[in-house]
Amino acid sequence: MRSKPPTAQIIAVGSELLTPTRLDTNSLFITEQLNRIGVQVERKMIVGDREDLISDAIQSAVESAGVVFVTGGLGPTADDITRETTAELFGRPLLFDEAIMESIEERARRFRFSVGENNRRQAMVPEGAVVLPNPKGTAPGLFLREGGALVFLLPGPPRELKPMVREQVMEVLEKSFPVSVHLTRHLSVASMAESKVDALVEPIYRQYPEIQTTILSSPGIIHLHLGCPGTSSEAEEKLEELSARIKGTLGESLFAEAGQSLEEVVGASLKREGLDLATAESCTGGLIAKMITDVAGSSEYFRGSILTYSNELKKTLLRVPAALLEEQGAVSAAVAEKMAAEVCDVTGASTSLSVTGIAGPGGGTAEKPVGLIFFGLCCRGGVFSKQRLLPGGRETIRLRAARFALDWLRRELL
Amino acid sequence: MRSKPPTAQIIAVGSELLTPTRLDTNSLFITEQLNRIGVQVERKMIVGDREDLISDAIQSAVESAGVVFVTGGLGPTADDITRETTAELFGRPLLFDEAIMESIEERARRFRFSVGENNRRQAMVPEGAVVLPNPKGTAPGLFLREGGALVFLLPGPPRELKPMVREQVMEVLEKSFPVSVHLTRHLSVASMAESKVDALVEPIYRQYPEIQTTILSSPGIIHLHLGCPGTSSEAEEKLEELSARIKGTLGESLFAEAGQSLEEVVGASLKREGLDLATAESCTGGLIAKMITDVAGSSEYFRGSILTYSNELKKTLLRVPAALLEEQGAVSAAVAEKMAAEVCDVTGASTSLSVTGIAGPGGGTAEKPVGLIFFGLCCRGGVFSKQRLLPGGRETIRLRAARFALDWLRRELL
Repeated sequence: MRSKPPTAQIIAVGSELLTPTRLDTNSLFITEQLNRIGVQVERKMIVGDREDLISDAIQSAVESAGVVFVTGGLGPTADDITRETTAELFGRPLLFDEAIMESIEERARRFRFSVGENNRRQAMVPEGAVVLPNPKGTAPGLFLREGGALVFLLPGPPRELKPMVREQVMEVLEKSFPVSVHLTRHLSVASMAESKVDALVEPIYRQYPEIQTTILSSPGIIHLHLGCPGTSSEAEEKLEELSARIKGTLGESLFAEAGQSLEEVVGASLKREGLDLATAESCTGGLIAKMITDVAGSSEYFRGSILTYSNELKKTLLRVPAALLEEQGAVSAAVAEKMAAEVCDVTGASTSLSVTGIAGPGGGTAEKPVGLIFFGLCCRGGVFSKQRLLPGGRETIRLRAARFALDWLRRELL
Repeated sequence: MRSKPPTAQIIAVGSELLTPTRLDTNSLFITEQLNRIGVQVERKMIVGDREDLISDAIQSAVESAGVVFVTGGLGPTADDITRETTAELFGRPLLFDEAIMESIEERARRFRFSVGENNRRQAMVPEGAVVLPNPKGTAPGLFLREGGALVFLLPGPPRELKPMVREQVMEVLEKSFPVSVHLTRHLSVASMAESKVDALVEPIYRQYPEIQTTILSSPGIIHLHLGCPGTSSEAEEKLEELSARIKGTLGESLFAEAGQSLEEVVGASLKREGLDLATAESCTGGLIAKMITDVAGSSEYFRGSILTYSNELKKTLLRVPAALLEEQGAVSAAVAEKMAAEVCDVTGASTSLSVTGIAGPGGGTAEKPVGLIFFGLCCRGGVFSKQRLLPGGRETIRLRAARFALDWLRRELL
């Protein structure tokens, strides 16, 4: 009986997982199951169908982790060598298991395939291993204790692996060590650079070495992930304390404490305030509307959008005066404000956002470079504009612009 | 000079990549680039932000492979330790690089963020390492030769990593050993189920065992990837032959032969035909417009969009008669046709697409269930509609609907 949960490693075997188009996704499911009982994954490996690589991977995993998963390479074909390699590595002879062979034959009768010599390999079991029956396929899973670690060999196909983990592996793990839920907090921050977020929160979180703090950056949004093993009330208090101190430091930049998206938070605020929204977009090309309507139920507060990708439509649909476009250019504060005001008027919405800018890669000038974006906001009777120079390629600039606009509205609604 | 290309290993660093929701996808891009010059990946590892794990991973990779990539952990925050760990492992002191610091400061001025003490760490370089400038972010890449292996330390964000690999790393690799190109073909198919695609092409590709054929499915689009090692003219002929036979079988459902997106193909067709486009969207909420404007230069043929998320706006902005909405409902063929016709009229575009439907999860009835979508198309003077019942959740239904609409227009323009 261990006093605290061990760490885990996951090894995915298969040369197809080392090509440009395939990823090992079994490990996501396994990680989710392990985290539920407080076991963290410290390393994942993906190796080709080569004995030396598989053997090294299992060896080094068993030396470091308390739980080791090996997925794939248990099939009937010649390149499936996980079973043999593991037996060889641990010096355990392979023994023929009559019960496995019978279940393969039974399955073959049911699904009308013929049992070949290669299926006999699937009935071989390393001495001392526990067989985990596989109702969804021919390859059973195997479970061994080796060098203080629990080692699971599992079939690669997700539809065979998942029920085996859920129904058999988790039971073994829950019996092997005390279950401890992993406490977490997830804080999201908008319109602040990663280095600034870190400079603000690092002096705080380094005072809590027992809590693992991870900072994840994406264009315009930073996520802070706080994790703490164990469920003691002391651990929970510590986590709550750190979380509260970080929240205090970040202030209004913090927009979510439970993983909600910016557009969900904006939607909830609009509903709370009894407001409705329309957008007038140019360079974002519908992205803001798309994000808002990603949220189920957004029709309660979202009226619609007018997307004017040409100057002509800015004039006809949003009544931007030709003189204004001429003098200030389409990418200007005055045009952004006019777009915001007019889309409220045209749609009848109480609140609006507008965006006009240069997403690139073409269209930039020395005076108005790629990344220059003007935002308009019409809210509670006022019309406002802001200007930003956003870094990145076309896709990133558009994403940053959409998130900046939504975050501006969010702050206005606070 | 080596006589044949070495094998490669890829190490992704970051505790966030060991959670149940995140995968390392940089390695797919790197693998694709490496395969192009005949370098195969033999192992991938994903390790958390821990010195012992990172150090062990790099050590064992350098012992086995000729090319080693380490991605992530070069950022400014305290948990980014790839640079320091590598320097320590290889016994190379870290030296301050004035040029890197200047480029960080220049970037900070341009994008108006403040340079903190933590950014200074990004200007430290292990002795003897070559600096790979990063025009997209603050962390430069680093390249070292160690124990016969070429070791690249690269930033984790894909938009920083990808150009660095494409423009700098590949040049180093191509100079280091003879290039052997891996021949590939990439075919894309729309509006056909994966099982149907496979039933059509499997009898063909199984006659070419020397070519690896992979079928990848995403909502509404299937990709066929044909790969063939070696550059002999015989190999190229075989690949060409298989590709031609598959194309013949798929007919008009095939929309791209070189990885172009559906929206790129539609844009190119519109330009070729001298047509311009507008959209009228409801349940897709701007997604079609967003996809069209993902393409740089789309302002040449895209006018804009009217997004009517409420019945009221369908009446006022798209002049859908109240009686029609009353009798047929907003989700109907007649309303889809009216939306398509009116958006051409209002925007002056020659061609239009419209979508109205039920994306869910709410709003479905026995008669009009979630997933029921009506599409309108106005093209070369005619107005048409189609109806589909699309499977999946809200996000998948919206994506399928947008792709179906674009594919319908593509076929009309053939």
